[in-house]
Amino acid sequence: MTIQTLGELFHHTLKDVLYAERTILKTLPKMQRKATDAKLKAAFASHLEETEQHLVRLEGVFDMLAKPARGVKCDAMVGLVDEAEALMADIEDIETMDAALISLAQAVEHYEIARYGTLVAWAKQLGHAEAAALLKATLDEEYGADKALSKLAEQRLNAAAA
Amino acid sequence: MTIQTLGELFHHTLKDVLYAERTILKTLPKMQRKATDAKLKAAFASHLEETEQHLVRLEGVFDMLAKPARGVKCDAMVGLVDEAEALMADIEDIETMDAALISLAQAVEHYEIARYGTLVAWAKQLGHAEAAALLKATLDEEYGADKALSKLAEQRLNAAAA
Repeated sequence: MTIQTLGELFHHTLKDVLYAERTILKTLPKMQRKATDAKLKAAFASHLEETEQHLVRLEGVFDMLAKPARGVKCDAMVGLVDEAEALMADIEDIETMDAALISLAQAVEHYEIARYGTLVAWAKQLGHAEAAALLKATLDEEYGADKALSKLAEQRLNAAAA
Repeated sequence: MTIQTLGELFHHTLKDVLYAERTILKTLPKMQRKATDAKLKAAFASHLEETEQHLVRLEGVFDMLAKPARGVKCDAMVGLVDEAEALMADIEDIETMDAALISLAQAVEHYEIARYGTLVAWAKQLGHAEAAALLKATLDEEYGADKALSKLAEQRLNAAAA
């Protein structure tokens, strides 16, 4: 692998995010099963549907570039999932598990927010306006998912204080 | 390792973030050396100073809990740094390298934003008001660092468009 232009870096990062989204698609159902709080379970279910849509959009961007939708191993997402798996195996207490799941999901969301934010900027810089719009739609949903998780965490905090 | 309470999860996550910050402290100087743009170099230098301060604050939180400031391997940060090292080794073009460095640093910032956001919420929930204030000060700086990098990326985008 050698990357010498912004276009090549954009393509490489798309492959990284494709791998990351496919990994999330496999991990989210496990997190959903581990969750007890009904709202948290619902949040995972809804983000699973969004993630399927993110993959469709990404495949659309690969199509626009006339490139195959092939991923490249994303070490960061592998690390995030390893952390999630280790914690999920370690915690038995239901309340503590739900708190951990929210936190793990937010770490994943923030990785995606960083990545899609970058991809939108680069797509614009490279003149791929249509790709930028698709990536921006996903970025907005990632922000939304993170906000929803923060709200859940906040409600738990208030419930604990009451 | 077994984690059965929110207090234990808080302590575990503090150790994770301590390891992450120590890793960043070793990686930032390499990123600074690889950067060409003077503003980007300056941004890395300033974030290096902030990171030293984040470590001091974290050590303060361990003190408050009467626990030793010992880290635990953070797979996510290891993955982020592996990605950064691989990309830094791969890119020769100066412009492409600077774009990649901004993007890599933002991925790191967002991991920290997620983690410190969680730690602040848990510190409050656990009644550690003073720890929450320290962690919040760092969280705000992480947001600031991410914003500064976005601004740099934006300026590059406008320069490219002009």
